[in-house]
Formats: sequence, C-alpha cells, structure tokens
Amino acid sequence: MCEANAYLRSDGKEEMLMEMVDKIIPQDGGLVLEDIFGRRQVIKARIAELALVEHRIVLEKEAEK
Amino acid sequence: MCEANAYLRSDGKEEMLMEMVDKIIPQDGGLVLEDIFGRRQVIKARIAELALVEHRIVLEKEAEK
Repeated sequence: MCEANAYLRSDGKEEMLMEMVDKIIPQDGGLVLEDIFGRRQVIKARIAELALVEHRIVLEKEAEK
Repeated sequence: MCEANAYLRSDGKEEMLMEMVDKIIPQDGGLVLEDIFGRRQVIKARIAELALVEHRIVLEKEAEK
C-alpha cells in the first residue's frame, strides 16, 4: 500500500497529523485528508512538501494571507 | 516504491505529465516535480487531488487568479 503519513509543520517542528493517508483534496482554502479506511479530516492548511518514496506529506498552516 | 504518476487535468481531460513522481514542492506559484531519478520539472499548476493508493496525482493549471 502506498499511503503516506501527514505531518503538520509549525515553527520548524513537525507533528504527526494523520497516518495512512490515501487522498488529499484541496477544498475551500483547506485540505480534506482521507485515510485508507475512509476516515476524513479537514484542516486549514496547505501542502508544503510531498515525498512519496519516504511516505511523507508535510502540511503547513495558512499563515500570511 | 511508492511513487505516483502526475496527470494534468484540463477541460475535464487528464494527460500524463510525469511518471514515477517522488517529490512535489510548491514554489513561486507553481510546483516543482521530481521523479525517483531526481529529474525535475517545474509547472505552473496546483494540486487538484492526490490518491496515493492509486498512485495518482492530479494537477490543474492555475486559471482564474
């Protein structure tokens, strides 16, 4: 399975937000994350970096906009 | 390996943009795509959808901004 873990970066630190993420859909200024079990989470953030081979998705809160 | 294929969606159709994408980094209003061999491509587009289990990344050109 090629899911990834989503981390939220703030102040240079990353914390785990959601494991086994399958889908991400940008929506209404935020992101809808869905894991491989279909569980969803909506977060006001943007994608800062994807590194799929490392199974990493890094998100950042929308700040200066 | 958990790379994905990147498709560019326009007018409801999707065309293959880059295979075996490892990294995506948003930068300067566009995206830097890097495949598993380290080859890079920069495109003025945004992420429309990720579906990692299906190895799909769908991008869309920036339109009305």
